[in-house]
Amino acid sequence: MSGVRGPDQVERLVAMLARLPGMGRRSARRAALKLLQDPGGLMLPLSEQLRETAESVRPCRVCGNIDTQDPCRICTDPSREQDILCVTEGVADLWALERAHVHRGLYHILGGVLSALSGVGPEDLRIGALVERIAAGEIQEVILALPATVDGATTAHYLTDRLRAAAPHLAVTRLAQGVPMGGALDVMDDGTLAAALKARRPA
Amino acid sequence: MSGVRGPDQVERLVAMLARLPGMGRRSARRAALKLLQDPGGLMLPLSEQLRETAESVRPCRVCGNIDTQDPCRICTDPSREQDILCVTEGVADLWALERAHVHRGLYHILGGVLSALSGVGPEDLRIGALVERIAAGEIQEVILALPATVDGATTAHYLTDRLRAAAPHLAVTRLAQGVPMGGALDVMDDGTLAAALKARRPA
Ligand SMILES: [Zn+2]
Ligand SMILES: [Zn+2]
Repeated sequence: MSGVRGPDQVERLVAMLARLPGMGRRSARRAALKLLQDPGGLMLPLSEQLRETAESVRPCRVCGNIDTQDPCRICTDPSREQDILCVTEGVADLWALERAHVHRGLYHILGGVLSALSGVGPEDLRIGALVERIAAGEIQEVILALPATVDGATTAHYLTDRLRAAAPHLAVTRLAQGVPMGGALDVMDDGTLAAALKARRPA
Repeated sequence: MSGVRGPDQVERLVAMLARLPGMGRRSARRAALKLLQDPGGLMLPLSEQLRETAESVRPCRVCGNIDTQDPCRICTDPSREQDILCVTEGVADLWALERAHVHRGLYHILGGVLSALSGVGPEDLRIGALVERIAAGEIQEVILALPATVDGATTAHYLTDRLRAAAPHLAVTRLAQGVPMGGALDVMDDGTLAAALKARRPA
């Protein structure tokens, strides 16, 4: 009935906002109220930006990055080192590395890591596409910038074997220890990322 | 340039999300990424809901509540006590009281409290409209459910004088002490709100 939990339209908005990472029910309600207090100020512009971004952004067919162009601006940037490829679990990790300005080469996003528990196998990740890029011959080094978890390590081992089989002279490296166990790359500070990348070692 | 901070469309979205209460730059980025990973799942529906809510919701001309109808569903609900009026600072407080199911009468939202520091005077609040509602004669009691702050107390004093002058036989009450000093109504648990309302005393 009536205003008990706020009108339906507002409740529906609160429920959607509460699904965003970091938002609880209470903060979603506060966010909805702030939006409602000045619909023209942020609410309608945010609606428009969500639509515009959803419609203009897509995954890069080469690396899996998200951009308004495909292939993405990293893949098509001739000033980047074309012979060194950094493999990450997701887009968030690529963005974290870009913010840290520590990698001037290209990327390849797996879209996850191998996980027996979650039933994620090699065919669920962009591994075939990675092997194809390596087989093309231009890449000299692949940096495995994967999470310092058991699944991340399993994935790194698996990729090392696959890549060595496809290109025996390829250098396959990992981020140095320095990335704390269980740590996600995208919440690490730039210094830690830079040190780990600089001290990378053969896989 | 390029992907350094994510593409522009994404950065604009992150900047807008970061303006929501409770969201920082980092959580806004995580939210944007989650949205981008499945645009049809939450991103476009959220865009649509924001637009729809913004267009369908407006302030109630009587009480100041936000609803899809004007006058709102509380003001037009004949089952509510028509002779008791609860005055709150904002819509969030009304919603908090409704969630606690402790007030079965009507509401009047001031849209703020008096504040010498912020330059908020009586003419900036919906006080004239409140006095008019009281002057109509049906209201027997006004409950001042204002924040337990200096400005809240100042506003309660001011309203008590104004309301007594307009309707000498009107009961003007305040929430009982029990609302902690400096506490905002909308973050209080239902029990505290219920106790404070039940033990309300003459102003
Ligand atoms: Zn790309
Ligand atoms: Zn109303």
